[in-house]
Amino acid sequence: MKLQINLDRLRTDLEDLGRIGRDPNGGVTRPSFSRADLEARAWLKQRIEDAGLTYRLDGAGNIFGRKDSAGRTIMVGSHLDTVINAGMFDGSVGVLAGLECLRTIKESGAGISRPIEVAAFTDEEGNLVGDFLGSRAFIGCLDKELLEKGRTQIGRPLKDILKGTDFTIGGILEAHTTAPELEAYLELHIEQGPVLESDDIPVGIVTSIAGKHYRWCSFSGTAGHAGTTPLELRRDAFLGLADFALKSTQHVATHHYGSMVTIGKVQVLPGAFSIIPGQADFSYEFRSHAKETLEALERELFSLADDIAATRGLSFASKLIDRTEPVTIPPRIMAILRSECDKLGYPYLPLPSGAGHDAQILASKTDVGMIFIPSPDGVSHSPQEAVRWEDLEKGTNLLLRALVRLAE
Amino acid sequence: MKLQINLDRLRTDLEDLGRIGRDPNGGVTRPSFSRADLEARAWLKQRIEDAGLTYRLDGAGNIFGRKDSAGRTIMVGSHLDTVINAGMFDGSVGVLAGLECLRTIKESGAGISRPIEVAAFTDEEGNLVGDFLGSRAFIGCLDKELLEKGRTQIGRPLKDILKGTDFTIGGILEAHTTAPELEAYLELHIEQGPVLESDDIPVGIVTSIAGKHYRWCSFSGTAGHAGTTPLELRRDAFLGLADFALKSTQHVATHHYGSMVTIGKVQVLPGAFSIIPGQADFSYEFRSHAKETLEALERELFSLADDIAATRGLSFASKLIDRTEPVTIPPRIMAILRSECDKLGYPYLPLPSGAGHDAQILASKTDVGMIFIPSPDGVSHSPQEAVRWEDLEKGTNLLLRALVRLAE
Repeated sequence: MKLQINLDRLRTDLEDLGRIGRDPNGGVTRPSFSRADLEARAWLKQRIEDAGLTYRLDGAGNIFGRKDSAGRTIMVGSHLDTVINAGMFDGSVGVLAGLECLRTIKESGAGISRPIEVAAFTDEEGNLVGDFLGSRAFIGCLDKELLEKGRTQIGRPLKDILKGTDFTIGGILEAHTTAPELEAYLELHIEQGPVLESDDIPVGIVTSIAGKHYRWCSFSGTAGHAGTTPLELRRDAFLGLADFALKSTQHVATHHYGSMVTIGKVQVLPGAFSIIPGQADFSYEFRSHAKETLEALERELFSLADDIAATRGLSFASKLIDRTEPVTIPPRIMAILRSECDKLGYPYLPLPSGAGHDAQILASKTDVGMIFIPSPDGVSHSPQEAVRWEDLEKGTNLLLRALVRLAE
Repeated sequence: MKLQINLDRLRTDLEDLGRIGRDPNGGVTRPSFSRADLEARAWLKQRIEDAGLTYRLDGAGNIFGRKDSAGRTIMVGSHLDTVINAGMFDGSVGVLAGLECLRTIKESGAGISRPIEVAAFTDEEGNLVGDFLGSRAFIGCLDKELLEKGRTQIGRPLKDILKGTDFTIGGILEAHTTAPELEAYLELHIEQGPVLESDDIPVGIVTSIAGKHYRWCSFSGTAGHAGTTPLELRRDAFLGLADFALKSTQHVATHHYGSMVTIGKVQVLPGAFSIIPGQADFSYEFRSHAKETLEALERELFSLADDIAATRGLSFASKLIDRTEPVTIPPRIMAILRSECDKLGYPYLPLPSGAGHDAQILASKTDVGMIFIPSPDGVSHSPQEAVRWEDLEKGTNLLLRALVRLAE
């Protein structure tokens, strides 16, 4: 069997989808349950039906296209949603490569014994309440209170956002009850980093996916007049944050090489030229590929924050916003991907994924595997995000062969 | 002559004025040209006329109440405007203590040879385009371009804010043409710091007023995915800011004891949990009582910022927003205030003012002097701002004696 995907068809699909939610300045903005997302969903439904697959929608808005058969399902997918002013490839390539694989298999009449489904998971990007809403709903690990009371990125409660749609919080919580039993889940994704491109390698086989902690933290001190409070008497919350930012980054770089720590959002209060900050709120995220390292980071970094607060007469508080566990790709899946890649004659690089993916969530229910294709300049979450079509073709052919191996 | 001010009358005035612009939660919000400010202006006009003084308004909205005579004017004043959710004493005590002094002099029939005026200057707090709009207009040092194009704290252009009033940008720029020639300017103000209270001293005689630089600064680096960009390859703009905040504070504390440096406003872009900051914008202000120190700070601090940017692969830019020069109170005024305070038998402390005041602006045109009264707990720019009435009485009596000495 020498199946090959049809790159022209896949490229046309990607370009059609990339026009939905297009920003005036060039990017794509298509958060889940936005008007653009609803349009993209209708478009995908049509593409699934055109391919002769069975369309299915679960209570969380996850969309499936199934080629039915008996036994446990082989699933392939990713997500259609985007961050604000994103590119057109993050997520979309995974869904549409999966769809192209199913079309190719169906057209070939290949003797596949297991059911195969392509999946598009809702809100992987976390524009609603935390990342991975759809895949978390699919495996049934969502928290009702978070859905009911969690603050969305847009500010409006999820309940209100759902009003314009056919979905409900109850439906999201029940989505997992309609999930098929899985044999494996595969996902193709852009790398979102510079490694494959800089090594000039068309395909990456993901070895592990980093787990992460998202926390919202705060140093509190005493606001005061910037002209009348001597430096040595200040309890400046922002200087506490500055100290913590430098020391904690240094700590991770020195003692946990390969792990990541990032402060991406900062709010200083009251926030005026002449007022010493009484409060400094900030996002704090750290990632690691090893569960033990992640636990050590949590202990060590927050102990450091407490020390800094004590030294500077401040107080420190932090709240867990979200967490994911690190995932190691099972040897069985790694072996299939490596051997199929060898057979295809593609150079490949085994590499870890620092970014999170739906595959990471599904890993608690089934064996998962991931294929990366290069991100030119390492760019993602940006209108400048790109792929080289020949890389996409190779990655999708590898995905196809791995799916066939798993489904045979 | 044994003139004494009437504390009950002054206190009633302060409490009446403090009800104008009262916030539901207790503070006072009365930025210049707000509805509350227009109400306060009408109230003050009535109080000036009730006192038998000549009411005058200049093109910048500065309000004057004059007891006329021949020769150069002795002026006493401060401001009616407040920051958002302020207390009821910052500025108001200076205007109303001045009014009370004029009332006392007028009622006494004392033989005063020079004209005396009480002044309420517009927008000392800088809710519009930079601090001290009114006193700067009064001495004629405003920049037309700033008034026309400057960003106000409220966001709307000054031109639009003025639409609801009788004032125009042209009128503000012409205000100085109607200013009388001054012999001296005195201002009573709350200390806005903890020194007088902690020493249990009712009156402070200001020796100097710190000059300051306000700058809006920015470190720029490269935004990137927090999961896929190794720590050692990042050009994190926020870490540049953190480094600069700590090192520059340390530099001032070590090499320029008594000077101040403050980062009060911070904006990190793009501002998301999982995106490495590509830009960190911040307010940067530093103050000193000596012109040479202020100049040294400007050189040293921005050279430090450039070094940090270079080390971290970032770029640094800064823009001057506002500056004031340090002022040393002239010996003639210090001598009058000291000797009158001695005669009254009040304990007093000579002390520098870290905060800026209208007196600082008027210092380029005339001899200025300032009297401080204690701020309980050092609090200002807060609904918790307070005065002790007996301190206010002493401070106002000293103001009265000094005015009489200057006007005789």
